[in-house]
Amino acid sequence: MNKIQVSIVMGSDSDYAVMKEAAHILEYFGIGFEVDIVSAHRTPKYLFDFATSAHTRGIRVIIAGAGGAAHLPGMVASLSPLPVIGVPIKSSNSIDGWDSILSILQMPNGVPVATVALNAAKNAGILAAQILAAGNIRLRKKIEIYKLELSQEVVKKRKKLKTGK
Amino acid sequence: MNKIQVSIVMGSDSDYAVMKEAAHILEYFGIGFEVDIVSAHRTPKYLFDFATSAHTRGIRVIIAGAGGAAHLPGMVASLSPLPVIGVPIKSSNSIDGWDSILSILQMPNGVPVATVALNAAKNAGILAAQILAAGNIRLRKKIEIYKLELSQEVVKKRKKLKTGK
Amino acid sequence: MNKIQVSIVMGSDSDYAVMKEAAHILEYFGIGFEVDIVSAHRTPKYLFDFATSAHTRGIRVIIAGAGGAAHLPGMVASLSPLPVIGVPIKSSNSIDGWDSILSILQMPNGVPVATVALNAAKNAGILAAQILAAGNIRLRKKIEIYKLELSQEVVKKRKKLKTGK
Amino acid sequence: MNKIQVSIVMGSDSDYAVMKEAAHILEYFGIGFEVDIVSAHRTPKYLFDFATSAHTRGIRVIIAGAGGAAHLPGMVASLSPLPVIGVPIKSSNSIDGWDSILSILQMPNGVPVATVALNAAKNAGILAAQILAAGNIRLRKKIEIYKLELSQEVVKKRKKLKTGK
Amino acid sequence: MNKIQVSIVMGSDSDYAVMKEAAHILEYFGIGFEVDIVSAHRTPKYLFDFATSAHTRGIRVIIAGAGGAAHLPGMVASLSPLPVIGVPIKSSNSIDGWDSILSILQMPNGVPVATVALNAAKNAGILAAQILAAGNIRLRKKIEIYKLELSQEVVKKRKKLKTGK
Amino acid sequence: MNKIQVSIVMGSDSDYAVMKEAAHILEYFGIGFEVDIVSAHRTPKYLFDFATSAHTRGIRVIIAGAGGAAHLPGMVASLSPLPVIGVPIKSSNSIDGWDSILSILQMPNGVPVATVALNAAKNAGILAAQILAAGNIRLRKKIEIYKLELSQEVVKKRKKLKTGK
Amino acid sequence: MNKIQVSIVMGSDSDYAVMKEAAHILEYFGIGFEVDIVSAHRTPKYLFDFATSAHTRGIRVIIAGAGGAAHLPGMVASLSPLPVIGVPIKSSNSIDGWDSILSILQMPNGVPVATVALNAAKNAGILAAQILAAGNIRLRKKIEIYKLELSQEVVKKRKKLKTGK
Amino acid sequence: MNKIQVSIVMGSDSDYAVMKEAAHILEYFGIGFEVDIVSAHRTPKYLFDFATSAHTRGIRVIIAGAGGAAHLPGMVASLSPLPVIGVPIKSSNSIDGWDSILSILQMPNGVPVATVALNAAKNAGILAAQILAAGNIRLRKKIEIYKLELSQEVVKKRKKLKTGK
Repeated sequence: MNKIQVSIVMGSDSDYAVMKEAAHILEYFGIGFEVDIVSAHRTPKYLFDFATSAHTRGIRVIIAGAGGAAHLPGMVASLSPLPVIGVPIKSSNSIDGWDSILSILQMPNGVPVATVALNAAKNAGILAAQILAAGNIRLRKKIEIYKLELSQEVVKKRKKLKTGK
Repeated sequence: MNKIQVSIVMGSDSDYAVMKEAAHILEYFGIGFEVDIVSAHRTPKYLFDFATSAHTRGIRVIIAGAGGAAHLPGMVASLSPLPVIGVPIKSSNSIDGWDSILSILQMPNGVPVATVALNAAKNAGILAAQILAAGNIRLRKKIEIYKLELSQEVVKKRKKLKTGK
Repeated sequence: MNKIQVSIVMGSDSDYAVMKEAAHILEYFGIGFEVDIVSAHRTPKYLFDFATSAHTRGIRVIIAGAGGAAHLPGMVASLSPLPVIGVPIKSSNSIDGWDSILSILQMPNGVPVATVALNAAKNAGILAAQILAAGNIRLRKKIEIYKLELSQEVVKKRKKLKTGK
Repeated sequence: MNKIQVSIVMGSDSDYAVMKEAAHILEYFGIGFEVDIVSAHRTPKYLFDFATSAHTRGIRVIIAGAGGAAHLPGMVASLSPLPVIGVPIKSSNSIDGWDSILSILQMPNGVPVATVALNAAKNAGILAAQILAAGNIRLRKKIEIYKLELSQEVVKKRKKLKTGK
Repeated sequence: MNKIQVSIVMGSDSDYAVMKEAAHILEYFGIGFEVDIVSAHRTPKYLFDFATSAHTRGIRVIIAGAGGAAHLPGMVASLSPLPVIGVPIKSSNSIDGWDSILSILQMPNGVPVATVALNAAKNAGILAAQILAAGNIRLRKKIEIYKLELSQEVVKKRKKLKTGK
Repeated sequence: MNKIQVSIVMGSDSDYAVMKEAAHILEYFGIGFEVDIVSAHRTPKYLFDFATSAHTRGIRVIIAGAGGAAHLPGMVASLSPLPVIGVPIKSSNSIDGWDSILSILQMPNGVPVATVALNAAKNAGILAAQILAAGNIRLRKKIEIYKLELSQEVVKKRKKLKTGK
Repeated sequence: MNKIQVSIVMGSDSDYAVMKEAAHILEYFGIGFEVDIVSAHRTPKYLFDFATSAHTRGIRVIIAGAGGAAHLPGMVASLSPLPVIGVPIKSSNSIDGWDSILSILQMPNGVPVATVALNAAKNAGILAAQILAAGNIRLRKKIEIYKLELSQEVVKKRKKLKTGK
Repeated sequence: MNKIQVSIVMGSDSDYAVMKEAAHILEYFGIGFEVDIVSAHRTPKYLFDFATSAHTRGIRVIIAGAGGAAHLPGMVASLSPLPVIGVPIKSSNSIDGWDSILSILQMPNGVPVATVALNAAKNAGILAAQILAAGNIRLRKKIEIYKLELSQEVVKKRKKLKTGK
């Protein structure tokens, strides 16, 4: 089994429908990960414990997804020395996702969150893989192959479009 | 001297130019207050200690102002049983204030922040007074008088406009 | 039966689907409340009577919900010395809720409205409870317990996520 | 002297810098008008008296300008049977004028406000003239001449551009 | 039969679903009207003829509804001396209605359009009635009665809410 | 002298500060052009004559710039068979340019306007050159050289950055 | 068969549902075209080859549609001397289309993209025809006839509305 | 001298005023870096060469800043297997920064860009350090110390605020 290097956390279990895509792509890359619910607003003490200790447990990248006034990614980034990837989630009663995007993206100087697109948990997983690959040639090769596959899928669709008309 | 009942906190000393208006109106109402800098992102542990203990020190309302991805009001509300008033601040590099407004306003169910208008620290102070007046007839009378004065100022300006033309 | 301390008003009966959540959470906290329809634009005289007299009837907090060009919360705040909590409602033909948010939030100096998130009537109820708890230890204890329960729900969901996969 | 047919009201004396353009264009058309400060939030009772009685004093059109959470035009429209023209004003601490535009424009069914562009008090005055001209041939002729002059000004600028290069 | 005093025009037949509400309320007030399709972009010459001649046919108010880059109300206002009421319509492929609102509202100095809320054709009709009532006491009485009825409907709903719970 | 193939029109002489950049780049490409003020709202009849006749005078591309509720580009496109390039201009009292962008861009099916970036009159000129180059090899060569020069400027700045530090 | 003069490219096969309207209108005008999938992000090398060679294959106009962070139109414009028409597509997880509009429209000086309305592939096709017609009288006649037909359709709908009521 | 591990690129030399903050913080952390101008739109071929080869030169993280329709970060991410950090820059003629934020953030599945706040080049540098620290204990210690210093600065400002009043 793979060593757990990435922690995927989310503010609510309802976010899992979006966040599981991060898990799937990490599985694809063969990177060990854990999944947890950490609500900045409902379980602040657990957030504290989680974020201050993650790096001591061998975690090297944290992916945090949240919607609305999304404070989870920023607060984790505040408490942990690890790189934190933020996934803005378009929840119900969200204002078209603007609230979660701005709450995650517009962090003050000193405390970055690596923000990806609205609901883009898959990209968060790929970014985590790229971060880990900074010190891992084999993983970088996998990423290069993944990119090749992306391109080949387009080639297939192109053929289908051209012949299928 | 008045007992300290309101705590005015802000994410950065640069927010004081806006937040001092809360202090001035509390002085006007004769309500004791304290002022502090509590950065959610730079001093998360101090935030924790501040927010979990404020009600044990006799504080009854917290006013929290912050700009950008403004997590201070929401995190204080998460950690304290007290009513928290949030003041969105239009800081430099803010996106016209939308980021701080949405970061403070769009809190999830269970953890409200009483949000006032952009930069409206004065209104935060008045709201704090109204909250304290819920159990204090004398203070409510002061608020009624304050509202009367607001109206009288308009009357004066009306006269000036009508005669000054 | 509990003394009526909170008045929940809304601009239209169609807002009740959202606003009833404020009623439910006040029931949970054992706080007496009334519910009324007060249209700023269709019943301005009733608005006047309601808002100028509420505090004389023992009401201590007003929760006002409205959509579109939402003037109800601000006009109540203008006429009453009580703290007013505003709930922006995303009505049909609303522009994604921006209209009601800005109409309620951006009040001028002197007349605050404690604004909560879009459709967040539940949070309005909790905030009303926190305001009343400023002078009521027993109620504050209930709020602390409520927050504990919020956190325990997350713990349950965490377990379910971890074991249910 | 001309009979007063138009009432120009604004929420604050600071709005006069914008609203005076309505006065000037009414003077140009020879239409009698009055100017007043009526703050929806600071002088709600005066607002009430003003709006419910304006039509009994011979006023036939009301122009109301306000900024931020701009409730004045809508509340006047709620209380008066007269046509109400709303001028959104971009005040300080406004969110680029969006707040006043949406607060004035997005009125519910039953209570229209004839909204003009941000800060467009001049257009409010012209619209008032057009409304009064609905039953006044001489005034309509003046409007037709005014439009001709607008067009002639452009012709002059065109010449200047073409020859002045 | 009533003399035709109001012209209701729209950019496309698909707008009729929204614009018919203007017709219904004018019927209610007993005001004669006509309905027409005038596309600024597809029938510019017809627009020209319509707008330059409407006032010569006895039309006294024009209601113009359009979606997207909505140029119809503004171009009619440019060509006619009559007051023009603009109805922004949220069409398919519209950007949440922002495009039609801003295209209609933000007219330059000299050429006002009396803009109502998104899809608010009913309010356009009421506004037309108010404009015609500026020189017509009987019509103004009808408007006062209409407003009374609005208020009575709310009273009924209030009763239902209070007893029906 | 070059044959006039491009007509640069703008809603107001104040737009010339922006629109002259279109003239300069057309000069650079050696393309003949004319400049005119055509106000959709103040000179609608001139607009009509201009737009219906431009192609009969040998004009092959029209560049139209306007601010606010910017109807000029769309109305020209409605009346002319020629390709029309629209330049949204951020005028005073504009809402950050959103009004002119959406008024120009969001044209209905059947009547396109080739919209460029806010204030991007230079790009409008380049686009006009590219359109004319569709049937003109020599002009296309000039465009290829222009693009080369763009790239060489960057190379120079790169050198300066690298050595100038 | 018609010579291929227009290339319609899109970032993903899912965009074809929108982009096929460009193909249909080009067929209507009898203009030869090709359709291809060129993903700026998944097939950057193919994008390079496509964009740098299109003009050498006789292509005279490129229509490029993309959603989200839509880089395809701008990158094609960067690499090709041909006029490029950009179609912003409202894809899933898009933020109401704002992302694709701004990513395509706001190109820097030197590299224009002729942007059309959200999802307006039909208008992109018409614009391509207008560009080709700059050097082709017969094609311009077709465009004039097309515009006439647009106007006649409105006339038919007008009749239907007037008689069908 | 430190090995070059980070490449800081920007679309224009005018972006250097913002992007130099990334350089300064990398110097602070003792991380080797290079600075270059790579314009996606003006030097697409250089972009290609730069992005496809960076990882072969030992670069491990790329920081790319751009304004307006900001395609540089996304295109680099498309062409390189390395993690790419995007800095949205609020350039002149930008629409309040929304264009660059959305152009960089809203990348499609498969090609993430780690986006930081508007103009937040400093945070981009810190994030690069955190990424490199994923495989470098000494660097992580430096980051922990940096966070401590952030917190101590706030403590100093707090003292100054409390005593300086």
